[in-house]
Amino acid sequence: MCDITFSCVSDPKAARDLVLGPSGVLQGIRPGKCYIEMSTVDPETITELSQVITSRGGRFLEAPVAGSQQLSNDGMLVILAAGDRTVYEDCSSCFQAMGKTSFFLGEAGNAARMMLILNMVQGSFMATIAEGLTLAQATGQSQQTFLDILCQGQMASTFVDQKCQNILQGNFKPDYYLKHIQKDLRLAISMGDMANHPTPMAAAANEVYKRAKALDQSDNDISAVYRAYIH
Amino acid sequence: MCDITFSCVSDPKAARDLVLGPSGVLQGIRPGKCYIEMSTVDPETITELSQVITSRGGRFLEAPVAGSQQLSNDGMLVILAAGDRTVYEDCSSCFQAMGKTSFFLGEAGNAARMMLILNMVQGSFMATIAEGLTLAQATGQSQQTFLDILCQGQMASTFVDQKCQNILQGNFKPDYYLKHIQKDLRLAISMGDMANHPTPMAAAANEVYKRAKALDQSDNDISAVYRAYIH
Amino acid sequence: MCDITFSCVSDPKAARDLVLGPSGVLQGIRPGKCYIEMSTVDPETITELSQVITSRGGRFLEAPVAGSQQLSNDGMLVILAAGDRTVYEDCSSCFQAMGKTSFFLGEAGNAARMMLILNMVQGSFMATIAEGLTLAQATGQSQQTFLDILCQGQMASTFVDQKCQNILQGNFKPDYYLKHIQKDLRLAISMGDMANHPTPMAAAANEVYKRAKALDQSDNDISAVYRAYIH
Amino acid sequence: MCDITFSCVSDPKAARDLVLGPSGVLQGIRPGKCYIEMSTVDPETITELSQVITSRGGRFLEAPVAGSQQLSNDGMLVILAAGDRTVYEDCSSCFQAMGKTSFFLGEAGNAARMMLILNMVQGSFMATIAEGLTLAQATGQSQQTFLDILCQGQMASTFVDQKCQNILQGNFKPDYYLKHIQKDLRLAISMGDMANHPTPMAAAANEVYKRAKALDQSDNDISAVYRAYIH
Repeated sequence: MCDITFSCVSDPKAARDLVLGPSGVLQGIRPGKCYIEMSTVDPETITELSQVITSRGGRFLEAPVAGSQQLSNDGMLVILAAGDRTVYEDCSSCFQAMGKTSFFLGEAGNAARMMLILNMVQGSFMATIAEGLTLAQATGQSQQTFLDILCQGQMASTFVDQKCQNILQGNFKPDYYLKHIQKDLRLAISMGDMANHPTPMAAAANEVYKRAKALDQSDNDISAVYRAYIH
Repeated sequence: MCDITFSCVSDPKAARDLVLGPSGVLQGIRPGKCYIEMSTVDPETITELSQVITSRGGRFLEAPVAGSQQLSNDGMLVILAAGDRTVYEDCSSCFQAMGKTSFFLGEAGNAARMMLILNMVQGSFMATIAEGLTLAQATGQSQQTFLDILCQGQMASTFVDQKCQNILQGNFKPDYYLKHIQKDLRLAISMGDMANHPTPMAAAANEVYKRAKALDQSDNDISAVYRAYIH
Repeated sequence: MCDITFSCVSDPKAARDLVLGPSGVLQGIRPGKCYIEMSTVDPETITELSQVITSRGGRFLEAPVAGSQQLSNDGMLVILAAGDRTVYEDCSSCFQAMGKTSFFLGEAGNAARMMLILNMVQGSFMATIAEGLTLAQATGQSQQTFLDILCQGQMASTFVDQKCQNILQGNFKPDYYLKHIQKDLRLAISMGDMANHPTPMAAAANEVYKRAKALDQSDNDISAVYRAYIH
Repeated sequence: MCDITFSCVSDPKAARDLVLGPSGVLQGIRPGKCYIEMSTVDPETITELSQVITSRGGRFLEAPVAGSQQLSNDGMLVILAAGDRTVYEDCSSCFQAMGKTSFFLGEAGNAARMMLILNMVQGSFMATIAEGLTLAQATGQSQQTFLDILCQGQMASTFVDQKCQNILQGNFKPDYYLKHIQKDLRLAISMGDMANHPTPMAAAANEVYKRAKALDQSDNDISAVYRAYIH
């Protein structure tokens, strides 16, 4: 019955069920109704949802968010939007409340594509950081000193600093779920697959996260990929 | 004849030849003479050089530098030192002229170990960035927008920004030679090998750089690994 | 209208459409009707097809085949069956005509699982063979001699011999389509994903086949993965 | 004092020490003396040994063997020879006693190159087999049935059969040491490195063997790489 419905769920199946399921949102879509999908899913799912919503006269926008639990709490998310530009403009005040900035990326599906690539890069960065910290330990070096040096150089970033801190403190409380980054890596690899584009770094990272999942790290933070390197 | 000799060459063989070769530095090493090895080589080479220098009464320090051509010009290198602490202290003014900061890491070999791990991380980051930018293009997204989004998030760093700029501008003038980062990846993987420590991200990255070398990118900047993804 | 319908198509989507599409086979399924799915697809698709067929009173068997065009012509395929055992027994004469042997593997989905693992192994073997032959060439060795030596040892097999011959003769006429083995690798990796089981060899192979596809080798034989190593 | 010296040791360092060390073979090399290196080492080591032996007037042949403990006991090894052809011919009766066949491959170094590529293929095959068997188990399939099916198809080989049997029986008594195949993978990857030739399958396999080594499988058979997949 709402004029605008926001959805944010964990994977393509859940996103699809919410719209297409037995008592799904689609039942209530009529001209004038807006549906905003904020989940990070694959572009095919977005395209399908966009088509069914618009075929009933509804307006569709995808608006996945880049960021973590902490950034969300602070209203510092980055929002990637694509689909119906008028919805994007009508909801700009909502997006301003949630995030520090937003991008409009054109037709529906583009925000999903961009978000998967960003998360693919993040997943590979995280695995690389864990690989570096564990190799430091395995060769008798101080992990704290490794971090200190890293933070003096050009690779220094909030991400590197926070994730190394997590590992040094053994604090894997989820800021971004490990199982979600693995899902994103899988979807990004699959997107590369359809584009005939090799993604060997993401493929290697994906296998490391699968090992972490086998070690029961799914519901920990992505930095718990560290444990795949020490077990 | 110098009291202090600084060496900075491109690989383990060159570093060894400079000391041990027919008219090598070792000939002139006597008590009181200092030898400072600034090349990034493997820890075994450092250990060997340290032993021969000290067995003649010389003092040995390794002091590889983290950074690029540009940082070197600006005196903003980070220096990792290990070996004879008194040499490190005696030369502190030299290091201050070259770099913005330095670390003393204990016994000879540790600076090589730490440097190889740092460069391993850098090599994997670079390949990941190239993979992200090319997947953006392959799926119809703007590379410039991808960079803009990346720079709004927690992964933003000088490194990410500069290397993406290189790629967007097609400017692969060497700030750090691609062949050198591949050599460092190789040495880091080999170090992991000796420690029985898997490094799947570095192994994947190494194969991408080998492809880039096969495409004649050895003497370009490390960002030219981009070309391994588009050919 | 047939009592028994055999299906053999190229991917999960086609298999699903044939049954569930607008004028799909499901319309004609009634008690007594049998549906035999011979396509190599993912276990989820098989489970779904099995459920819809049996919910209408039909009997369902999956029976994917291991082998190639040539083996098919010769009636030498290996058939993996699972699902309704009575259908398997009723159709034993058909399977004997098509294949040299068959296995019954229990509940529907098991044949898909086993076939994907077999094809995953085959895809990784093929990429490994291509890697060996090209490294021989790159290091100045005779590829023919490499094959001769390989065929004297314990790794000798019909597969190794035939695929090396293909490469030595530059004959990539499809006996098994490269695009199909890449699809199978993708599905096997995804199956490992759901089981939290790392498959780093398959992941590496998948990236090589993606490169081969980008080089327009999709409709050639799987041995054309060779070209991913020389371009 | 012997006219012909045969050497067969475990790695490049041992091979070099035996010739060049303090009481090494080189001391006794004079015109007429033959040195036959049967170890599997890198081509650079062979080239170096060949040069020092021949510079003293000696004759040099490399003759690494393909095969296992069992094949050695049975006199069924395959011998790859390269270097001085007259030595090869003079020793043909020795080689016939040890192996079922031999190949002469031209200049010294070629046998090392060919052997490393063969062992690289073997190492990748073995990791692939272990990956298939463990994925079968992880998805609820019978490993014995998987082997039965594999042995009905074109990939059937003595190697596949024996190594699967090892795994099914949990018998990892060394026929070929896991640490040696990992050393060979490392040397083959390094050879690809020097030829700018990517070897992504070998690189992935190498990381799996490193994990197996970290799990204390170095002195077990190569089939113990299986354990890297289940721990």
